[in-house]
Amino acid sequence: MHPQPIREWLNASDRLCGVVSWINRRVPRPEAPRLRPRVAPTELTKVDFTELVPEPVPFLGQAAYIQLEFFEGLALAVATAPTLDAKEGLSTAAGVALGKHHDLIAELRRLEVEPADVMAPFAPATDRLRAAWSDADWYELLLAIHITSGMLDGYFSSLAKGLPTDVARRVRGILDRGGAGAILERELAASIAQLPGLSDRLALWGRSLVGDTLLIARSALRASDARGLDEKVEPIFTELIADHTRRMDALGLTA
Amino acid sequence: MHPQPIREWLNASDRLCGVVSWINRRVPRPEAPRLRPRVAPTELTKVDFTELVPEPVPFLGQAAYIQLEFFEGLALAVATAPTLDAKEGLSTAAGVALGKHHDLIAELRRLEVEPADVMAPFAPATDRLRAAWSDADWYELLLAIHITSGMLDGYFSSLAKGLPTDVARRVRGILDRGGAGAILERELAASIAQLPGLSDRLALWGRSLVGDTLLIARSALRASDARGLDEKVEPIFTELIADHTRRMDALGLTA
Repeated sequence: MHPQPIREWLNASDRLCGVVSWINRRVPRPEAPRLRPRVAPTELTKVDFTELVPEPVPFLGQAAYIQLEFFEGLALAVATAPTLDAKEGLSTAAGVALGKHHDLIAELRRLEVEPADVMAPFAPATDRLRAAWSDADWYELLLAIHITSGMLDGYFSSLAKGLPTDVARRVRGILDRGGAGAILERELAASIAQLPGLSDRLALWGRSLVGDTLLIARSALRASDARGLDEKVEPIFTELIADHTRRMDALGLTA
Repeated sequence: MHPQPIREWLNASDRLCGVVSWINRRVPRPEAPRLRPRVAPTELTKVDFTELVPEPVPFLGQAAYIQLEFFEGLALAVATAPTLDAKEGLSTAAGVALGKHHDLIAELRRLEVEPADVMAPFAPATDRLRAAWSDADWYELLLAIHITSGMLDGYFSSLAKGLPTDVARRVRGILDRGGAGAILERELAASIAQLPGLSDRLALWGRSLVGDTLLIARSALRASDARGLDEKVEPIFTELIADHTRRMDALGLTA
């Protein structure tokens, strides 16, 4: 993974949102891989997520709200699907996201907090995702949900390793539930195969989604009591981007 | 229940849709109740739904598609909800509708048919419901789903009595699942209590929803092999309207 694009993405995100750019501080970097840039850098970065200790309540609140957003996006994709077959698949995907949302809400209730109160602070930043989708056509909407949920589900599941053991196990079980990604990939692959020009458009669109998604990911670290953040954060984002690249590759799209 | 409004509604629906109006044939009528029109006419009409024998495949196809429509409506209500608390309740209701849809799809797969093919013929008439909702504001959307799903779930569950015993038991179990209605009623009641003038507007809107809902109900009889339809159909619709009136009454709205 070539490091340059990550830095650009993060800086672009910073400018976008007007937040302080702390990623430009020189931090120890993992050795950049020398082979083709598409190689997953997992071996090299060795991120130990258990060193990051999220506060359970805001962590769950943000994770639950994000799933609600995915649900809303998928429901919109169902409502605007061009065929009943597509509706069928996507409604299953919507059910997966909704199930994750409700199960994370149940975790919040176990902690005896009011889910709506806990989720509320995360609404504005997360709603930016949906605002970006609102101008999208159906294919772009599908890719947006695929890219964003793919990145964030894996990322929040990794972060959840730092929660108390029992909570960690349950929450990772919720977030790791698959199903939606495969459905989105199948729909997208079929559409790309049928529609000339869609591939180029989606490649461009896919790149545009990364900034906001990384902002959300970074805000999760801020919401958490993430000790030693500076040293750990760049490999985490490197991994996130690599994950994104693999997802784009699977669709034949240039990340 | 005064019989006149039913006839008007049905005739209006006929004109609306351009279908042949067979409800105007003089059929034996149940005695009209003499007391206040809000009394449920169940005792008087004695509809025996087991005499109506729906064809399982189109019956399930229509029922499944209708649940998909409710899901889409509820998902839109989630996405446009004014508060996170409302989102929470409505997302649960959306999950209920989605579960019903998926479980009815599973029944179709048991019969080794392709759900999308079976649902397709019912899409245009059902989509008319959603088209009517598309101009609605959030409160009207909630009432539309409450009224329509309340009427049609009960009605399809009654019709399902005529299915083969095993299928009937499972399908009624699916359709009778509650949860969504109570959530919608709670949200609507709270809104009506807060917003002066909403009650009048919703009363009018509620009345406007009945025609299309009855058209859907009637098309289910047509799709079925409903022997002796003419004699049985008016009491069925009388019961549907009474059910609607009770639902409006519960919200303090004049049906």
